[in-house]
Amino acid sequence: VPAVYELFYWPGIQGRGEFVRLALEDAGAPYLDVARLSGRGRGMKAMFALMDGPGTRVPPLGPPFLRHGRFVLSQTANILLYLGPRLGLVGRSEPERLHAHQLQLTLADLVAEAHDTHHPIAVSLYYEDQKAEAHRRARHFVRERLPKFLGYFERVLVKNGGRYLVGRGHSYVDLSMFQILDGLAYGFPRALTRLERRIPRLLALAERVRARPRVVAYLASPRRMPWSDDDLFRAYPALDQLA
Amino acid sequence: VPAVYELFYWPGIQGRGEFVRLALEDAGAPYLDVARLSGRGRGMKAMFALMDGPGTRVPPLGPPFLRHGRFVLSQTANILLYLGPRLGLVGRSEPERLHAHQLQLTLADLVAEAHDTHHPIAVSLYYEDQKAEAHRRARHFVRERLPKFLGYFERVLVKNGGRYLVGRGHSYVDLSMFQILDGLAYGFPRALTRLERRIPRLLALAERVRARPRVVAYLASPRRMPWSDDDLFRAYPALDQLA
Repeated sequence: VPAVYELFYWPGIQGRGEFVRLALEDAGAPYLDVARLSGRGRGMKAMFALMDGPGTRVPPLGPPFLRHGRFVLSQTANILLYLGPRLGLVGRSEPERLHAHQLQLTLADLVAEAHDTHHPIAVSLYYEDQKAEAHRRARHFVRERLPKFLGYFERVLVKNGGRYLVGRGHSYVDLSMFQILDGLAYGFPRALTRLERRIPRLLALAERVRARPRVVAYLASPRRMPWSDDDLFRAYPALDQLA
Repeated sequence: VPAVYELFYWPGIQGRGEFVRLALEDAGAPYLDVARLSGRGRGMKAMFALMDGPGTRVPPLGPPFLRHGRFVLSQTANILLYLGPRLGLVGRSEPERLHAHQLQLTLADLVAEAHDTHHPIAVSLYYEDQKAEAHRRARHFVRERLPKFLGYFERVLVKNGGRYLVGRGHSYVDLSMFQILDGLAYGFPRALTRLERRIPRLLALAERVRARPRVVAYLASPRRMPWSDDDLFRAYPALDQLA
């Protein structure tokens, strides 16, 4: 098995690639963030070449995707399903792996809904061209969907003993939960503050993840890009309305 | 391993449960469609009891979910990931299973986008209360997203030899592709007709699936519910606009 993982994702944003990046970083795995590098076989051009290339058996519809040796795999949660056991970031049994994946897919649903608060009509349009619809969708997200999702994950966490979302130890699902709470703190600070009392265990989990030595080192490194308003979560105050 | 699979899904619609139902039916697997049955331990009440019950290790956020013995699993694509090898509906190697799952997750993305054409603002609102936004979102879906997704799957199919979407034989991904084309024919007949010339292989694949003996029997049975406008795909002509 080849040692180096190659991640392909849009440079400049955390996006969905960050869930994979965090897993690789937390595990201390050797990896290349290919589209952010320059030189032969690297950069955006290499990313597009692989997407459409004749050598790619099942092409991805889009980034992120992972290359490991000759194997190319896409869909964020699917990449983590593949990496989890290899990085020691999930339990060994099939039920536990599938339960971790169930939670990861539910986190992906939350991410998609958070994204659609600023793009409720089309990804091909600017936010400015769908602002009215965005405000309307965001109100429902903040009032209905966010409490529903976070309340669910709090229950899952409590049910599992309160320390880890799944299984008996740290997993990539905990890393992804941290990442989403970090994004929500950027994009929906008021909504998150209002929910704080209802998700104490989730917030404590996120702080434990943030304090993991490799996560600390990663977050302080230039490899971690700052949040920006080109990303999944955006600091548009008009979308972070409680009423 | 217990023999009987138990599917839990909203009665009355095909919805996301149908992807699981089709796999079980095509494989001729013994299963119970629990929420549609009556009697002790069946019906909607049993579904909700299982979702929130103390015995459910990792509760689902919502249906569909599968129970197999004591194992309860949710997220449609995840259920198919579990069932695929057990029903002989996917190849044996890890790369092939993960590639099948990649395609299934991309089909799930397409389904979510199709759903959001009639619910672009909130699932808690009626279509009538988000009609203007729905029309706008649907135009982009029909013009941009649908051609993008179907064009992608046509390319994947051609790349794999033209007969099956993944691997060397029939898989649950082919069944799901059939189901989506069937839903599109119900909800977006004009848009689908316009795309026909660009997806000849996909349409031929769907016809082969429709002619499989167990699929024929299933579609003719009362177990197959008709499409309706409470479902993922809805026959609202205003959303099926080409211009």
